[in-house]
Amino acid sequence: MALTLYWGSGSPFSWRVMLALQYKGLAYDSQLLHFDKQEHQSPQMLKLNPRGRVPVLKDGDYVVFESVAILYYLDLKHPAPPIFGQTPEEAGVIMRVICEFQSYAEPSLQKITSAIFEDTVAEDIDALTDAMHVVAREARTIEGRLSKEKWIVGTHYTALDMVIFPWIQLLRRALTKPAAAELGARFLPMERNYPALARWIERIESLPGYDKTYPPHWR
Amino acid sequence: MALTLYWGSGSPFSWRVMLALQYKGLAYDSQLLHFDKQEHQSPQMLKLNPRGRVPVLKDGDYVVFESVAILYYLDLKHPAPPIFGQTPEEAGVIMRVICEFQSYAEPSLQKITSAIFEDTVAEDIDALTDAMHVVAREARTIEGRLSKEKWIVGTHYTALDMVIFPWIQLLRRALTKPAAAELGARFLPMERNYPALARWIERIESLPGYDKTYPPHWR
Repeated sequence: MALTLYWGSGSPFSWRVMLALQYKGLAYDSQLLHFDKQEHQSPQMLKLNPRGRVPVLKDGDYVVFESVAILYYLDLKHPAPPIFGQTPEEAGVIMRVICEFQSYAEPSLQKITSAIFEDTVAEDIDALTDAMHVVAREARTIEGRLSKEKWIVGTHYTALDMVIFPWIQLLRRALTKPAAAELGARFLPMERNYPALARWIERIESLPGYDKTYPPHWR
Repeated sequence: MALTLYWGSGSPFSWRVMLALQYKGLAYDSQLLHFDKQEHQSPQMLKLNPRGRVPVLKDGDYVVFESVAILYYLDLKHPAPPIFGQTPEEAGVIMRVICEFQSYAEPSLQKITSAIFEDTVAEDIDALTDAMHVVAREARTIEGRLSKEKWIVGTHYTALDMVIFPWIQLLRRALTKPAAAELGARFLPMERNYPALARWIERIESLPGYDKTYPPHWR
């Protein structure tokens, strides 16, 4: 069946799925939706996902959304190479760290990047500084893992790397904006503050097909 | 290998795992931790989960936490009966609705139940009323599903039912407190406002072993 991905440029959730599709070598019809034209909220899209969010994956007549669910579906449908581990034990750790990232890092990442792109940093600097502390603490844990292994869990690139990577890229991009200079002072440059994470980013950037997943409006 | 579950009474996250262990007919060593004595934050527990949260499952030397990751691990390790569906398509929908529940319902449920149990409803009534609107909207979607099927997705009891059920029980319990009368007015009684959800609750309550999962301090 033909795969169609509906996605938005710069959406970390969309980027995850594109990384998985590339890694699994799956061809797909790419439907880039423009957030500024509200294309993700069109009647056609609301029929696929009533919440009007991307990414949405269509596989023939089957529709799935929520990025982690899409990764999970793709892995069950196209098991090679696996992205949720090789054993139940490894799968459990991968899913555990995905859940931890979603619970403990993502809300702060969302807060920080939204404030920077919406230019409201000054109004909310105390809460954003707290959020950066949370992010820095989580990043240190990941840095610890990556100083021992090439990938965040185990010896292979997995769904977990795909879940976290787009957020780190989005954060880096946000923190280089002038208004974020103070917030980013202890995070950037990553090569100095998080060297293992910086090497992991380069590792993903050099994967085959990475360029096709890069947000077009970031070029 | 012997399974050990570390859990807390009334924790919806713990309850999910107990429902799965019962459904799969897995014997386990039950370690009830007392939140009021900070037992979940003991040095021994922090060694298992540095975040000091329950549930934590130990399977021999292997340790996994975060409730959805535990359900996932248990299902891979002990596949019968399956709780993440019978096909990739079904699994995708189950995971999708779990992700939706976590993103769109859980933050509001957490806010409402915490405020009621900490007796701070009056201070924050506007935000709590908004949170109840969110919960009511999500509950209506689930009500719609349950008016057509016995279980939330598909024809079997799944991880999704286990993820949502404890929160509904916790919410019902919270809304019967006098301070929550106004908040609960359009939600309770569920038999009238959400009849399909009420029948689904009874269905789960009558499953074999349900009593063993019931929070002891609620009796």
